[in-house]
Amino acid sequence: MAKYLNKVREMMNEKKVDAVIIKSKTMKKYLNTLTGSGCQLIILKDTGYIVLDGRYLEEAKQKEHDLKIHLIQDDMVTDTLNVLKQEGCRNVALENATTSVNVYKKYVSSDFEITLWEEEFGLLRICKEKEEIEKIQLAVDMADDIFEKVKHQIKIGMTEYEISALLQYYAISMGAQQMSFDTIVTSGTRTALPHGRPTDRKLKAHDPIMIDFGVQVNNYQSDMTRMLFIGSPSEKMVEIYNTVYEAQTKALAGIRAGITGMDADNIARDIITKHGYGEYFGHGLGHGIGIGDGCEYPFLNQNSSTILTENMIMSCEPGVYVPGVGGVRIEDDVLIKNGVGVALNHTSKELCILKEQ
Amino acid sequence: MAKYLNKVREMMNEKKVDAVIIKSKTMKKYLNTLTGSGCQLIILKDTGYIVLDGRYLEEAKQKEHDLKIHLIQDDMVTDTLNVLKQEGCRNVALENATTSVNVYKKYVSSDFEITLWEEEFGLLRICKEKEEIEKIQLAVDMADDIFEKVKHQIKIGMTEYEISALLQYYAISMGAQQMSFDTIVTSGTRTALPHGRPTDRKLKAHDPIMIDFGVQVNNYQSDMTRMLFIGSPSEKMVEIYNTVYEAQTKALAGIRAGITGMDADNIARDIITKHGYGEYFGHGLGHGIGIGDGCEYPFLNQNSSTILTENMIMSCEPGVYVPGVGGVRIEDDVLIKNGVGVALNHTSKELCILKEQ
Repeated sequence: MAKYLNKVREMMNEKKVDAVIIKSKTMKKYLNTLTGSGCQLIILKDTGYIVLDGRYLEEAKQKEHDLKIHLIQDDMVTDTLNVLKQEGCRNVALENATTSVNVYKKYVSSDFEITLWEEEFGLLRICKEKEEIEKIQLAVDMADDIFEKVKHQIKIGMTEYEISALLQYYAISMGAQQMSFDTIVTSGTRTALPHGRPTDRKLKAHDPIMIDFGVQVNNYQSDMTRMLFIGSPSEKMVEIYNTVYEAQTKALAGIRAGITGMDADNIARDIITKHGYGEYFGHGLGHGIGIGDGCEYPFLNQNSSTILTENMIMSCEPGVYVPGVGGVRIEDDVLIKNGVGVALNHTSKELCILKEQ
Repeated sequence: MAKYLNKVREMMNEKKVDAVIIKSKTMKKYLNTLTGSGCQLIILKDTGYIVLDGRYLEEAKQKEHDLKIHLIQDDMVTDTLNVLKQEGCRNVALENATTSVNVYKKYVSSDFEITLWEEEFGLLRICKEKEEIEKIQLAVDMADDIFEKVKHQIKIGMTEYEISALLQYYAISMGAQQMSFDTIVTSGTRTALPHGRPTDRKLKAHDPIMIDFGVQVNNYQSDMTRMLFIGSPSEKMVEIYNTVYEAQTKALAGIRAGITGMDADNIARDIITKHGYGEYFGHGLGHGIGIGDGCEYPFLNQNSSTILTENMIMSCEPGVYVPGVGGVRIEDDVLIKNGVGVALNHTSKELCILKEQ
C-alpha cells in the first residue's frame, strides 16, 4: 500500500507539474512501494503507476493496491514515456540525483517540459506523520539502549574498533537493518577530528571517547553522540565539555516552531563563542532525521532560512574540536511538538567518568 | 601519491579523448587520491589536476605529488572548464554515473566534445596489480577467519540477526572498514531466497543456514558464501548441496584464461541442469571482486562475452533455490593466475553439520 502520495501531489500542485517520475530507493521507501531497481513510479494528479519488469510482478500484484501496475514491454524509459503520453502529461518532474544524462535526453526529445527536482523531495518529507515519529522514536530508543550496553563494557586497553564493533553487534542482533551511517568512535586527542573513523588505537587512562552512531529500523533512522571519559579528564577537557553541554542544552531548550534553522544554530554558536571556542565549532548545529540516506531537511546552520514547524525532527549536535587537545560533541534527536523542541533521547548528558579498570 | 594513472591513460588513448573528469569515490579510491566530495580529478595525457576547495588544500599539499593542485576560485564546474580550455582539450569524458544533467549541460555549452564513460571505468580496473591482489587476499583471509569464529558459536534457538551481528562484530573489531554489502543470513526454508536479509527467525534442528558476507579492508573487498546445517539435513537438501558442490568445484576448476564469462557460467549451469535443478539457478555464476562498490568486472553469466585473462578476480557462486524446501549457494573468490583459476578462500566446502546443541 503506497503512503504519502498526497504529499507528492501537494508539491506537484505547488510546482505546477503533471507527473513526477520516482526512481530513488529513498523515495520508494518513503512511499512504501517496492524498492527494487527494476521498479519506477509515475505519480500523476489523480492516479499513479508502478512500471516494472517481470521479476517484480507477483509481489506488486500482492502489495501495490494504490498504483496501476505497468509491466515493461520495451524498456523502462520507453514505457514510461508511453504512459506519460497516454495520460496527456506535459510538465514532468524527474529526480535530479537519479536521472542520467542519456535518460534525460530521451525525455526532452519526447517534447515534455522537464523540471529536475532535488530539494523538493526533501521538503515534502520535512514534517513527519504520527506513524513516522513513532518509528523514529523506536530507532532512538534502540540507540539509547545500545549505548547503555556498550558503556559498561568499555575498558582501558580496548581499541576504538572494538567499541564500534560492539555498537554494531547490538544493533544488528536487535534487528536494526543497518547503521544509519559509518559509526564514529574516537579517543584521546583523536576526538578533535569531528568525523574520525575508528582505528586500532587503545584506550588509555583519562582518555575522552566520542561515540556518534545511529541505527536504521523499519527504514527510519536515529543519530546520537555522547562522550565518555575513562578516569578523570583534564581540566581543559572539562571546560570544553561544560561549554558544549551548555550550548547543547540551551539550543535544545530554544528550538521551537517559528524560528529559522539559522536562529537555532545561533543559540549554540553564541554560547560557544562567548566561551572562546567559536573557531572550533566548524559545522552546523544539526540536520533533519528521518528516512534520510544522506539528506533530510531541515538543516540547522548559518545558511538555513527554513522556518521550523510542528512535527519536524532534527539533530541538535554542537561540538568543539581543539587540535592536539581533544573534542566534545553532544547530540540528541529533537522533535518539535506543541511548538517546542523535545529530545527523543533519554541517555544522560552529564559528564560521565568510567572507572579506570 | 596517485596510482594507476597509466590505466586511465590507456583507456583515453583507446577511446581518443584528451581528458577524463573523475568525481566518483570508487575511482578516487582506486587512483589513491583524496576522496572527499569537494575534490575532482582531471586526468590529461601527460599531466593531471586535482580541483578542490579550501578544506582539502593542506592534505592535498602533503599527499598529491603526482597531480597539480587547483584551488577552486569560482565553482567546481567553472574552474574545471577553465583548466580544460587552458590545456587545449577538445574531447572530454565524464562519468555517466556521477554527472548530473545540469553539469552536463554546462560542459556541452562550452563547446567540448563530451563522451559519457560508464563501463570504461570497470574495464580499466578489470586486471589486478600485484598490490591489489595482496589486498584482496587480506580481505578474503579475514572473511575466512570470521566465518570460522562464528561457526563455533551457532546454536539452536539463535536468530539470523544474531549470526549477522556476530559476523559484523568480528569484522569491525578486526579493522574492516565496513562489510562489502548487506550481509545475508537465512535459515530453514528461507534459504530459498537467494538474497534474503536476516530476520528474528530462530534456528531449529536440521535447519540449513546460508551465510553470504564479505569485508572491506584497505578499500578492497571479499565476498564468500557457505552453508551450515544444525543436525543432519533432509535427503533433499543433501541432494541440492551435492549438486551445487559439484557445480562450484567444477566451475572453479574450469575457470581459466581464454574462456568467456558465459563459458564459465555454462560449466556450472550444465551440471545443475543435468541434475534437474536448472530452473532454480536464477542468477549468474559470478562477478568481479575488487574495489567494487556495486560494479566490478568481469561478470560470469549468460550475457558475458568478456574473455577471462590473467590477474582478473571474480566470485564463483552457483546456487539452487527451491521454494518451500530451501536453497544452497557456495562461493569462493577466484584469481586467474598462471592461466588457471585459483580459489583465494581456504574455508572447507564439504557439507558441514554442526552438533544439535
